[in-house]
Amino acid sequence: MSASLPVNTGRRDEVAAALKARLPARCVLSDPEDTRPYECDGLAAYRQLPMVVTLPENEEQVLAVLDACRALNVPIVPRGAGTGLSGGALPIAEGVVISTARLNRIVRVDAHARTAVVQPGVRNLAISDAAAQHGLYYAPDPSSQIACTIGGNVAENSGGVHCLKYGLTVHNVLRVRVATIDGEIIELGSEALDAPGLDLLAVFIGSEGMLGIVTEVTVKLVPKPATARVIMASFDDVVTGGNAVARVIAAGIIPAGLEMMDRTSVRMVEPFVKAGYDTEAAAILLCEADGTELEVSEEIERMTEVLQGAGATAISVSQNEAERMRFWSGRKNAFPAAGRISPDYYCMDGTIPRKKLAEVLTGIERMETTFGLRCSNVFHAGDGNLHPLILFDANQPGEFERAEAFGAAILALCVEVGGTITGEHGVGMEKINSMCVQFRREELDAFIEVKRAFDEPMLLNPDKAIPTKNRCAEFGKMHVKGGVLPFADLPRF
Amino acid sequence: MSASLPVNTGRRDEVAAALKARLPARCVLSDPEDTRPYECDGLAAYRQLPMVVTLPENEEQVLAVLDACRALNVPIVPRGAGTGLSGGALPIAEGVVISTARLNRIVRVDAHARTAVVQPGVRNLAISDAAAQHGLYYAPDPSSQIACTIGGNVAENSGGVHCLKYGLTVHNVLRVRVATIDGEIIELGSEALDAPGLDLLAVFIGSEGMLGIVTEVTVKLVPKPATARVIMASFDDVVTGGNAVARVIAAGIIPAGLEMMDRTSVRMVEPFVKAGYDTEAAAILLCEADGTELEVSEEIERMTEVLQGAGATAISVSQNEAERMRFWSGRKNAFPAAGRISPDYYCMDGTIPRKKLAEVLTGIERMETTFGLRCSNVFHAGDGNLHPLILFDANQPGEFERAEAFGAAILALCVEVGGTITGEHGVGMEKINSMCVQFRREELDAFIEVKRAFDEPMLLNPDKAIPTKNRCAEFGKMHVKGGVLPFADLPRF
Repeated sequence: MSASLPVNTGRRDEVAAALKARLPARCVLSDPEDTRPYECDGLAAYRQLPMVVTLPENEEQVLAVLDACRALNVPIVPRGAGTGLSGGALPIAEGVVISTARLNRIVRVDAHARTAVVQPGVRNLAISDAAAQHGLYYAPDPSSQIACTIGGNVAENSGGVHCLKYGLTVHNVLRVRVATIDGEIIELGSEALDAPGLDLLAVFIGSEGMLGIVTEVTVKLVPKPATARVIMASFDDVVTGGNAVARVIAAGIIPAGLEMMDRTSVRMVEPFVKAGYDTEAAAILLCEADGTELEVSEEIERMTEVLQGAGATAISVSQNEAERMRFWSGRKNAFPAAGRISPDYYCMDGTIPRKKLAEVLTGIERMETTFGLRCSNVFHAGDGNLHPLILFDANQPGEFERAEAFGAAILALCVEVGGTITGEHGVGMEKINSMCVQFRREELDAFIEVKRAFDEPMLLNPDKAIPTKNRCAEFGKMHVKGGVLPFADLPRF
Repeated sequence: MSASLPVNTGRRDEVAAALKARLPARCVLSDPEDTRPYECDGLAAYRQLPMVVTLPENEEQVLAVLDACRALNVPIVPRGAGTGLSGGALPIAEGVVISTARLNRIVRVDAHARTAVVQPGVRNLAISDAAAQHGLYYAPDPSSQIACTIGGNVAENSGGVHCLKYGLTVHNVLRVRVATIDGEIIELGSEALDAPGLDLLAVFIGSEGMLGIVTEVTVKLVPKPATARVIMASFDDVVTGGNAVARVIAAGIIPAGLEMMDRTSVRMVEPFVKAGYDTEAAAILLCEADGTELEVSEEIERMTEVLQGAGATAISVSQNEAERMRFWSGRKNAFPAAGRISPDYYCMDGTIPRKKLAEVLTGIERMETTFGLRCSNVFHAGDGNLHPLILFDANQPGEFERAEAFGAAILALCVEVGGTITGEHGVGMEKINSMCVQFRREELDAFIEVKRAFDEPMLLNPDKAIPTKNRCAEFGKMHVKGGVLPFADLPRF
């Protein structure tokens, strides 16, 4: 959408030469022809050519890149598969990108311990493929799982449609090996239940490339459930659907997946995917049960009962694996479908307490009028993780800015009702201003101090994820004056 | 056992006066008569009278204590109920203890959101009692749950017999409010699925009082399972029992509890508790299933099948709640029973990969001869978390030292097979030397830097949990020279 900013070539030759002195020539790219593919990640509205791209092929080469950058005081942006949606891998004009693409070896799968040790560039789904012969798989399943890599999953603490039951990346990674900016290798976490010392593994997971470069990841594998079935339930309005989600959880059921789509989403997806969705419903819920045959049929029965009691107008249950996959295909293709009916879309990622679902959905509906843009809603309802898709046309003057303001207003509402500004897509550069809404200064300072503990020269992915004091001050002033966003009313701002 | 060291009274009057200027007189104790109850925690072999004890009654008073200590450069030791087993709350001669005993209010129970907000001095079991009217409870259940408090549980990341299925404290706490040494209040975590920024909640949980003082905790509540039953299985030798644990997990079953006791433990407990244990078996396993009636009977059936296949010589299943409680009572009273048959005992807490269970048990058996002391074994087998109880008599010259050496040798073996030096009891002062075995210097430095990010003057529980560079150097030299422990052979030392 926006044109890519040119790279500042001032130091390019010096930095490229320093890197080529330490790495094979094939691992260092500096010609814009070659670095172009790295100018953005999945948040393609923002583009910036990097000064140099490195493609290390082993841990020693990762350390060599860090060492060179530290010596030359050059900032570093780590990059996985580039599928991230918050601009976390957006390059810096005077910076070096470290791509983990060539660190793509599955070191071992241990069926007995139920673990896999992999390099960061291994694709999420490739882990499950390698474990399949043992009846095991890696549980977190972001929509991008065919393409995204475990290193990026660690950086963003990725989730997926099954994370209500199986947890996020942080719950499924046991250990990481990390190359630090000081040129050291440290291992965080352990294969045992708990480890002494501070839980730096959890800090590292979701740290968006700010603390170090992952060189190896040990993940937990779980047994493939014997079977799974999914219920599709229709509702007359989104509020009733939202309350039905609360009722399922309140009944003590933890479905393997609990997803909701509103009418706009359903109608966007159905012609494209033919998932068999009820296009007359105001909202549909997908509720999955997995486990043994007996467990699944018991849970499907209980969920059906609860959903009927909560006002579902129609219910169907997948009768075989093909039908189950078809029900999910609509949900998993919601984003591509948006691209089909709208020139551009902006995918948000807020999280709210489950009981506030109806309130926030009504708020978003009102904002469609305020900002003059349509918004379709798909979400991990069981977790309270919303993915509103704001539809716009960047070629229409002002629409991009309105979409951005709409997104920020949704996030401000999420914070207002006690939620957070991201569920699983990370802060990156996209939501860095919203961090000023989410946290008090003392809390942001705690983040900065911990970053400094790992990265004293502050070279790793700077200006992402954690706003500086100045940024929050400027952002506050700008928006309160402009009156665009209701942040000034928020208690914590 | 060892006599309590006297307090250094040099600064006592000055510090007590400064504290009394800020807190009501009833909240500041400095007379040894009054401070005596605070001289040790559950690791009673080590005693030290604190200079001053404070008992703040609200958050402002916690901040006032921190402020006074910072101004006077006095170290602080936080204390919950004092049930900890690693000396984490052992006072410092020139330090102030902050007891959270009077911060004991249950702020609210939210049945809809399934959360409870409580002050740190609320007892673990009191949370479940308050939630019981809604059919909910707080899952982590350390053996000390009648007495221990949530603040201490947060400090130690406590587990319990059900944490295989329900997780440790870190998996069941959503948010903490923390008073920092800088005199600020920060909130870590969120009630939403995931929060942006660094996961400082996870770092804080298990940080053993080194990062700040908790003033409020938001915990997750879970629905009470409709029913639960437990299998008691006997084995002819511990190795077969250990392998049976691996078989249960390999079958894809996650029991609500999976505990093992060896013959020494069983014979120690049975006359005391009359749990109905098989005193002829070399080891017994307790395997619990919880859930709906249908789920439980299906899981009990599957577990029975696996255990029989794994060589169980006898199996019985609890037929009602009273019998289930009786089966558990033996396990839960293993520590008091040790106190009944031995003048003293030393409870260890190592964690190992499950597949190494048999190897480590055999190793411990050999060490009984080496060190000339008996050791009974009870453990959270499903997690690989061992609790060897070393039996000794402190009045016999040299036995205490031999017990300590025996304990350190067990931990060294745990590290050697890929495990860790603590499962759930923390490092405290007890295992600080073993941290030099567990971690490389770069990793310990990362811990120290993160501690410094929270506690720049290094006043919070100093010399606990994380060893300094000097300590590891001295420890290494001492033990290699003395030849007491096999640390010098370990790859990471």
